[in-house]
Amino acid sequence: MVPKTHPRYKSLLNREKVVEAFDKGILAKAGLTAHGRGESFDYLIGEKTTTEALHSIKVASAVLLLAENPVISINGNTIALSKHDIVELSEELNGKIEVNLFYRTKEREENIKKAFEEDKEIYNKIKNKKIKLLGLDPATTNKQIKNLDSLRGKVSEEGIYSADVVLVPLEDGDRTEALVNMGKTVICIDLNPLSRTARKSTITIVDELTRCIPLLTKYVKEYKQKDKKELENIVKNYDNNQNLKSILNYISNRLKNMEI
Amino acid sequence: MVPKTHPRYKSLLNREKVVEAFDKGILAKAGLTAHGRGESFDYLIGEKTTTEALHSIKVASAVLLLAENPVISINGNTIALSKHDIVELSEELNGKIEVNLFYRTKEREENIKKAFEEDKEIYNKIKNKKIKLLGLDPATTNKQIKNLDSLRGKVSEEGIYSADVVLVPLEDGDRTEALVNMGKTVICIDLNPLSRTARKSTITIVDELTRCIPLLTKYVKEYKQKDKKELENIVKNYDNNQNLKSILNYISNRLKNMEI
Repeated sequence: MVPKTHPRYKSLLNREKVVEAFDKGILAKAGLTAHGRGESFDYLIGEKTTTEALHSIKVASAVLLLAENPVISINGNTIALSKHDIVELSEELNGKIEVNLFYRTKEREENIKKAFEEDKEIYNKIKNKKIKLLGLDPATTNKQIKNLDSLRGKVSEEGIYSADVVLVPLEDGDRTEALVNMGKTVICIDLNPLSRTARKSTITIVDELTRCIPLLTKYVKEYKQKDKKELENIVKNYDNNQNLKSILNYISNRLKNMEI
Repeated sequence: MVPKTHPRYKSLLNREKVVEAFDKGILAKAGLTAHGRGESFDYLIGEKTTTEALHSIKVASAVLLLAENPVISINGNTIALSKHDIVELSEELNGKIEVNLFYRTKEREENIKKAFEEDKEIYNKIKNKKIKLLGLDPATTNKQIKNLDSLRGKVSEEGIYSADVVLVPLEDGDRTEALVNMGKTVICIDLNPLSRTARKSTITIVDELTRCIPLLTKYVKEYKQKDKKELENIVKNYDNNQNLKSILNYISNRLKNMEI
């Protein structure tokens, strides 16, 4: 147990969550190294939501509200860190969550299903169709994303395949690119501003997942008061490349001014 | 298997090695996230040995040759990535390698012993006393480093406890600080120039392990031609803080000039 007084309490708590999910068979080994990579980048941005990230969160919130059929794509790390927050966000949208694993095995699928259903509140939400957990039933997860090998490319018709906007927390570059090539608006959450995912996405949020998802939910709720025109205005002048450059500058300046 | 043509072949190969060591019970789960953190920082320095790192490698080589009783401290990640290179380096010194684990269990100790002894060449070197694998026998690993909890602080009299110079690849901040407080010269290899280990060590090499150890061996071999005075001249004006600042500047400039 990490003591709450530890200066990096939240970061260490998240690490524990990821290890716990690994022990439960929700996360692959690659998920542990990926989490470590994220930790480094979070450290570089100061372990807080930057102005730039807040900007892309606001734009992403507007885009999610403007979407016809938004879907939240989740993997092991996302479930480990933000299961409840993802459910809450999806409820503010159309309730669609789709499990999409890089290393898909029957066992992991079952462990993930269990992780959601063992939570009584989430179980009831699934039962009452407030949220829909897609991507786990092979009978409906049978559409293929072009240019991706079969397991990683399998998605559901109702979810990612037909989605106009896909939120992909912690996604890899290949899949992001394939989704963009299908004409979808891709919102990613990625702490590495230089990753292929970050560069290829329509909107890149360079922020840590457990800080970011609640902020997305907050702005989605808030922006429901706005009409279509107002939402479009929020999105209109967003320049993802400019945002990424600005983050690189921010990190760059931080490094230059750090005390050794 | 990673194809050799992959632009990040070496990095992916190292990741595979770490996962393999994890599967063999040599590495703890924390070792997988730690490896991921290293990957990010290596990416930021461009996955090559910087001028600054080469400078500290040269100074470290001279320091190791000037030492009365140098010891190479190793953990799971070091064994996973650089078992053979570490043996080779230690042979150029006094042959002393000491296993020091953050999460020490009997099982891991045995797996590590096996990892060394299953290699016939290394086994013979141990048998012929060309190298000495310390830190695994509880009967001789019974000295306590001050201000560290018991398991992590247990070291051997012959090795780390009496060493004047300790090379610690991939070490944590607490242990580094405790060793420095014991009056030892600590050479660390750490990809994060901002870590406590990097800041607290006498000489910090900000480089990736599998690039760094062979370079240390190379310079140790080369510097054997030099006399004491010449070696002392190499060490004399080294400023670790300045070296770290210079690396931060290097990363900072790289980030500023990167194409998105």
